This record gives sequence, structure tokens and C-alpha cells, in this order.
Amino acid sequence: MNTAANTQPGLFAARNLTMLVDFYELTMANGFLENGLGNVTACFDLFFRKVPDQGGYAIMAGLEQAIDYLKNLRFTESDIQYLREKGIFSEAFLQYLADFEFSCDVWAIPEGTPIFPHEPLVTVRGPAMQAQFVETMLLLTVNHQSLIATKANRIVRAADGRPVMEFGSRRAQGSDGALYGARAAYIAGAAGTACAICDREFGVPALGTMAHSWVQMFPTELDAFRAYAKVYPDACTLLVDTYHVLKSGVPNAITVFKELKAAGHTPQGIRIDSGDIAYLSKKSRMMLDEAGLPEVKIVASNSLDEYIIRDLLVQGAQIDSFGVGERLVTSRSEPVFGGVYKLAAAGTAEHPDTLIPKIKISENAAKITNPGFKAPWRLFDGETGMAIADVIALADEVIDDTQPYTIFDPEFTYKRKTLTNFRAVRLQVPVFEKGRCVYESPSIAEMRSYCMEQLGTIWDEVMRFENPHAYYVDLSEPLWKLKREMLDKYFSE
Amino acid sequence: MNTAANTQPGLFAARNLTMLVDFYELTMANGFLENGLGNVTACFDLFFRKVPDQGGYAIMAGLEQAIDYLKNLRFTESDIQYLREKGIFSEAFLQYLADFEFSCDVWAIPEGTPIFPHEPLVTVRGPAMQAQFVETMLLLTVNHQSLIATKANRIVRAADGRPVMEFGSRRAQGSDGALYGARAAYIAGAAGTACAICDREFGVPALGTMAHSWVQMFPTELDAFRAYAKVYPDACTLLVDTYHVLKSGVPNAITVFKELKAAGHTPQGIRIDSGDIAYLSKKSRMMLDEAGLPEVKIVASNSLDEYIIRDLLVQGAQIDSFGVGERLVTSRSEPVFGGVYKLAAAGTAEHPDTLIPKIKISENAAKITNPGFKAPWRLFDGETGMAIADVIALADEVIDDTQPYTIFDPEFTYKRKTLTNFRAVRLQVPVFEKGRCVYESPSIAEMRSYCMEQLGTIWDEVMRFENPHAYYVDLSEPLWKLKREMLDKYFSE
Repeated sequence: MNTAANTQPGLFAARNLTMLVDFYELTMANGFLENGLGNVTACFDLFFRKVPDQGGYAIMAGLEQAIDYLKNLRFTESDIQYLREKGIFSEAFLQYLADFEFSCDVWAIPEGTPIFPHEPLVTVRGPAMQAQFVETMLLLTVNHQSLIATKANRIVRAADGRPVMEFGSRRAQGSDGALYGARAAYIAGAAGTACAICDREFGVPALGTMAHSWVQMFPTELDAFRAYAKVYPDACTLLVDTYHVLKSGVPNAITVFKELKAAGHTPQGIRIDSGDIAYLSKKSRMMLDEAGLPEVKIVASNSLDEYIIRDLLVQGAQIDSFGVGERLVTSRSEPVFGGVYKLAAAGTAEHPDTLIPKIKISENAAKITNPGFKAPWRLFDGETGMAIADVIALADEVIDDTQPYTIFDPEFTYKRKTLTNFRAVRLQVPVFEKGRCVYESPSIAEMRSYCMEQLGTIWDEVMRFENPHAYYVDLSEPLWKLKREMLDKYFSE
Repeated sequence: MNTAANTQPGLFAARNLTMLVDFYELTMANGFLENGLGNVTACFDLFFRKVPDQGGYAIMAGLEQAIDYLKNLRFTESDIQYLREKGIFSEAFLQYLADFEFSCDVWAIPEGTPIFPHEPLVTVRGPAMQAQFVETMLLLTVNHQSLIATKANRIVRAADGRPVMEFGSRRAQGSDGALYGARAAYIAGAAGTACAICDREFGVPALGTMAHSWVQMFPTELDAFRAYAKVYPDACTLLVDTYHVLKSGVPNAITVFKELKAAGHTPQGIRIDSGDIAYLSKKSRMMLDEAGLPEVKIVASNSLDEYIIRDLLVQGAQIDSFGVGERLVTSRSEPVFGGVYKLAAAGTAEHPDTLIPKIKISENAAKITNPGFKAPWRLFDGETGMAIADVIALADEVIDDTQPYTIFDPEFTYKRKTLTNFRAVRLQVPVFEKGRCVYESPSIAEMRSYCMEQLGTIWDEVMRFENPHAYYVDLSEPLWKLKREMLDKYFSE
């Protein structure tokens, strides 16, 4: 037997992606070191500004892979040599990289959590040259998987309880796109994937039956169906649109399903992959029912997304489950999750560990950052358990839910509300302490359950597709004051 | 020094992605074997139907990674064990996988070639269970990189000779999305990338200077610029929009550039990453020129694509180069390249090596496949050297360019033209012969030169953004007749 060590489960997790980094992280890190700022403490927030597809909520995903990345951070001799040949890095810096040990603190919102704009999803505090360096891969990982999780959950919601399978590997943007896309989709509620490696690596259930080529390899469609049923008598789903769904595919499937039943097996389903799926599914359902096969399920695929699925169901399509390909795995309608990574606070050469809040000014008010070392909270109604609002607070604040607490709109501050019966939960958990990983990711099945449970705390008004209600993400009074003072100071200069 | 073997150059190329496969490739392969069709010869074509973004041409990319995938095809013990536990695969099939040796013939169009709908980009001929199995990864690889190459070339064209740098790693769909996206962009004409690993792995030039966080780490912007200039006196590009481009960023940059010049260095440029880039670039250019710094370049970034770049240039923006992020690396406006992989011909259990043409019928005429084992050709005008048309022919045909040759529209067959002074070139090259790789990919720089040279043979009318002329992809007379006979037979039954 051929074996290749690097295809064992865990191959992806064990990859060293240290050099997958924007070159400017390296020039800046070297520059910080040269200017005596390399080991000054800096604090960065990873957050996003806008939910894709004009949606009201997103789903956090990708943390486990971000953790893998941070655990595997190290520079090899060939990395160092490559950098040395650039001729712009100091030997002191190259030696620092050769001896590199990640020593930052990291906090993050667990995967599967509903998330909203502006709240810190990941916070990194540590030596400036390290906290800066990890920007590219933290963004890449969280942006990618949160994008797909968010899209998948929209599609799962549209399917209204019917299973949604992820079918898009062949049109994913690279093999990570396929593997981690299927993972993120599962966390956010997909029932499984067509991609075998995602089953083997993460336990996301994979299944698949046949392509049109199966049918074409046999002299007739009936031959092809019988041949498949012979091999998979108890897992027989037949693709019925190679020639003509209603004239050929479904009648031949019925013939084979009856033969299967006569032999004591339970036929599974048919799949329709083209044509007018609403019409074809209704007609097929009638034909199957009339043939005494009400137990046979109908699977639909072919360029589906949340809008097409919703329309199909409104039209009364008789579909039991959906296979969704490229529009899920690339989030086709909005393929970018615009997460950013911004400096929130930093020490100085003189006082390297005294964090001074930093703010990024912009003419666009929505692009002004929230200054300081912070932590996001979620407040749940004590009676209904539903999420009321999130509050971004300074990291040393504690929201005491045994006391009344006033939230207010950071823009229209006269809009305020005092909560009495509520529960306050810190959204971030500690992930690394001084470079040591202190967080163990739950199983992917646990993440999925947690996601479904947490989505149950979000009002439907926030989750609808059209004009969703904007969920409140407020600032605590101390953070609001800090930001206001910094803005006043800036604009008065 | 820490070292990790798996981060050496070539890590990505050496990955065994055998299990990155749609599960149905496995159920079908097992089913073919069980039905005596496993080693029957089958022939598949990989092609696409529509150029993204309503464009007139696409760029082939991803072949080198497809070859890596095929070279690394093997099943490990853990793969076999994973499959055995599914309980649906025969031991004979599992043993076949354990002993797997790729033995197909593969032909493909080289990377960097302009490509058009319906022509076979990759053709695979071999045992049905193998030729079927490789579908998922061949599609994934060619779809992803051709998508990004095509998009990148549109952006490069819009920039009209100004360098375009790929800046999108942080918003790529996974690490392969970043790495191979930057690779594909370079083949299609980008000048380089921000992503260090793509430089180290493939020699795509990487560069980068500073983020806003650099500026914020210092007491003032001027301090930050001086600190950077001190470390990189001969590679000093300054990001001028952290506070206010015209009131602060450019004046401070001018101060530092004058100091650099006084010290005998050549200042490089400024980068503008927000705001009204047309206006800011014009004003900045004037300020730099007035300060006696006409040699300082202006780099623009921030959510650019081909349309924004074209508009900027129409408005007279004074930009010397562009950094293009998420809209390039995800091909945001159209993030899917819809390549498909279709059975074109196959033997039978009785005559396993006698290829019988196969056709996939669809109510949508554009979705009817071209039957038979085929090869695409490109015809160039003998005088101008420009591409006249592509012709999809049967594989055993030879287009003799010493004789007159008649091309005709496969739909409106009265539209015909007889060529006399022309050159005929087979577009595909042999890549694998009976499983042995017979093709060595050129260097990435060679691919890029070849791409630029080949694009020079495509008329501007085909390359424009709005309503491009549809380049002719005709069928040879023998192929047209074969297809027509098969359609007549099907629709008369």
C-alpha cells in the first residue's frame, strides 16, 4: 500500500502557514524592533462593519483554524534565508524570527455565536511586532469561515427545516475553500457535505450518489438505475434528469424502487438537478405517490441559494432536501466578509506596558474605530431569554446583572433604556495566555448545537432577509466617554 | 532555531489531496467496478460555458496544481479505513484504492492561454473509475485559478500599463485562495502581490510597506514617517491617509522625502487608501511636484476593481500603480467560474477500449455537450497573426494549414468562411501518458510572458468590457455531423 504521511487526518491543522503573511507585517515588525517598539505592548481588535447580503446577523467561525495557525507559528531556516535575501531586514530581526515564540494574549468569540458589526470578535494583546504580524492569517481565517457560515445559515433558514447539503467543492476558491467552507456551513446548520475530506477531517457527514456520467456509462437509464440499486440497495438515490425527468427518469426510478421493495429494501430518493424544479418536483411527487412510493424523498440541486429556495417553497415545490453548491461555498452574492484588524491601544517606548487608547479617524463616521482595550458583552432578557443588545465595554469593566444597567444609542444618546431583569454574558473567552493556548475547541457537532441554540435567542426581526431590524450594539458609558473625548480632542486641534 | 519540515518551499505542491473528492466519485467508482465497468475506457472533457463578468475571454490557469494533485494521488491506510467504515464499499474496491496507480492520459491547454466557452480545457482518458474520480479536484483547481486570472487580467487592462499589485490575502477564501489567487493574478499580468508566501513558493514579487497601525504606534505622523525612512531609506513608501491626506499626510511625507534626498536617498512613493482617490491623487501630485518631488510615485488602494480604476483614469487621477484587494482575490463581482466535467465517450463492458461518443441532452441548447474524444485548435491569420477562430475537432483530425479550410457557425451553418492564409495550432498539450507526467510547467514568469504574448493575438473587440464581440468557437465538420446525428437520433426516438 502506498502511504503518504501528510494525508493523515490533521494534515491541514498541522500546516505551518507562518509565511502566509502580507509583506508589510514583516517590514513593520522589523521597523518596530529597529525603533525600540518591537516589544511595546499593543492591542488589536478584529471586527467587521457590515453584515453580508444586507443581513441582520452573522455567524462567527474559523477560530479553531486561527488557533491552529497561532500554535504552528514558527520560522524555518528557509523562511529566514528568504527574508535575508530581501536585503532589508536587520540580522537582529532575523534572529528574533528564528527564535520566535508567540507570547500574546488572545480572546475570541466562540464559533457558532451570532455576531454583529463593530464588536471585537478577536482581541490580541502582546508585543507590537507579534500582535501586528498575525493580522493577515487571523483576518483570512475568520473572514472566510464567518462569511460561509453566515451565508449557509441564511440558506438553512430559507429551507425551513429541510436538510441542506453543501455541494460546492468543485467551485470553491481553492482546497481550503472547499474543506473549511463545508466546515463553516455545518457549524451554521447545514446537514452535511458532498466533500469526503471534510467528513474524515472534521466529521461533517458526507454523502453522495451519482452524476449524469453514471447514467451515461450504461446502455440505458434503466440499466444504470438497476446497476446502482444492485450495489447500493439500501442507499439508493437516483439522479433522474439525465434524459427527461418525467418521461424517463421518474418512471425508470419507480421501476427500480418497486424491484428494491420487492426484495425487502427501502428506496431512498430521487435527485432533480436541472429544469423547472418547482414543477418537476410536484409532478414527480404525484408520480411517486401514485406508484405507492410516498416514502421516497425528493432532493433538489442546481444553482440554489436562499432566495431560490424560498421561492420554490412558496410555489409549493415538493422537495425534502436541498443540495447547494457554488452559491453557498463562495457566498456568491457577496463573497467578501470585510473583517478588519485595527490597533486599539499601545504602550510607548518609555512605558511599554501602559496601554494608551488609539483611535483611527475617518471622514466616514462608521469607519472611526472604538479606542482602547475592550470586551464585548451580550445582554439577555431575564424573562424571555432573548438577546436584547450587545455592549462593547472597556476590558476592565464588569456588567453586574444584579443591578439595573442603562444602555443607550451611541449616536442618539437620548435613546436610552434601563434594564433590570437581565443576564449579562461576556462574549469573548480567553484563547491564549502569554502565548499558551488555554482554549479547547468544542467538537464540530457541539459548535453546531451551540449555534442553533444561540440563534434561538435572536429575534426573527433581526434574522429576516429583507430590511432586518438592526440589532443594538451599544458602547458602555466609560467607552463612549473615552471615544468622545478623543474625538473632541482630535477635531479641536 | 525552530524548524518545521512542512513549511519548506513546495509544501503546498506536495500535499496529498486525494480525499478532497465529492463522495459520489467514490460511490460511482465502486459501482463501476462492481458492474464490470471500472476499467472500461472513459473520456471526460473539462470546459466552461460562460465567461465571468459578461467578458469576451478568460485565461487558463491552475494546471500546475492540477498536475501536482494527480502526481500525489494515493490513498493512505487511514483513507481506506475511513472508507471501509462507511460500510458500502466492496473489499475489492478498497484493495484497488490501496494499490491505486493513476494510469490515465491527460491533455490540457497551457496556463496563460486565452480560452473561450465550450472548448475542452482538459481532456482525461483512462479507466472509468479513475477518470471519474479526478473530477472534483480538476474542476476546483482550474475553476479557481482561471477565475482569478481572468479577473486579474480585466483589472490589469483597466490600469492601462500601470502596475497592479494583488493585495487581497486577508479576504481570500482560505489560504489556498490567497496563495493560488496571487499566483493566477501574476500569470494574467499583475505585477506582484502583498503575500510573502507566494513570493517564496512561486517567485511572484512581494512587497509591502506599512499599515495605519504603524503611524498610530508613534506619537505623531511625522515621527512615524521619519522612523520608517530611517529603517528603509531606499524603499520608503508612506501611507498618507491615517489622519488627513492633504493637511497632514502629504505635507509630512514631503518633509521626510526632502530629508531623505538631502541624505542621498531616493524616496519611493505615497499610498492613499481611502477617501476620494481621484481628487486626493491630483492634489497630492501637485503638492509633490511643487515640493520638487516629481519622482515620487502615487499608489492607490481601497476596494478597487476594473470599473473603478477605469473611472479614476478617465477622471485624470494621478496614480502610478494600484493595489487591488478583495475584489480581485475573490473575483467579487462574479466569484464562480462555472467549469464542468462531462463524459464525452466511453467503451462498454464487451469492448472496453472502443470509445463510443456520449452526449448530454438538455432542454437548454447551450447545455447540450459536444460528443466524442476531441481536441481544440486555434486558427491565426497568416498576415496579422491575430486569432481568427477556435475549432473543436475530433481528436484524430488534423487541421492542415497548407490547405484551404472552411469554418462555419455550428448554429447558423450558412455562415461560413474559407481560410487560406492561416496557421493552425493545437491548443492542448499532452500532460500525462498512461499516468506518467510528460509535461513540465514553465516558470511562472514564462507563463506570464506567454499570456501577454497570446493576449496580443486577441482582437480588442473581444477584450472590451461592454458587449464584447463573441469570439468564434466552431465545430469541425466531422464533429458537427456526429453531434447532429446523435441529436437527430435522440429526438426521433
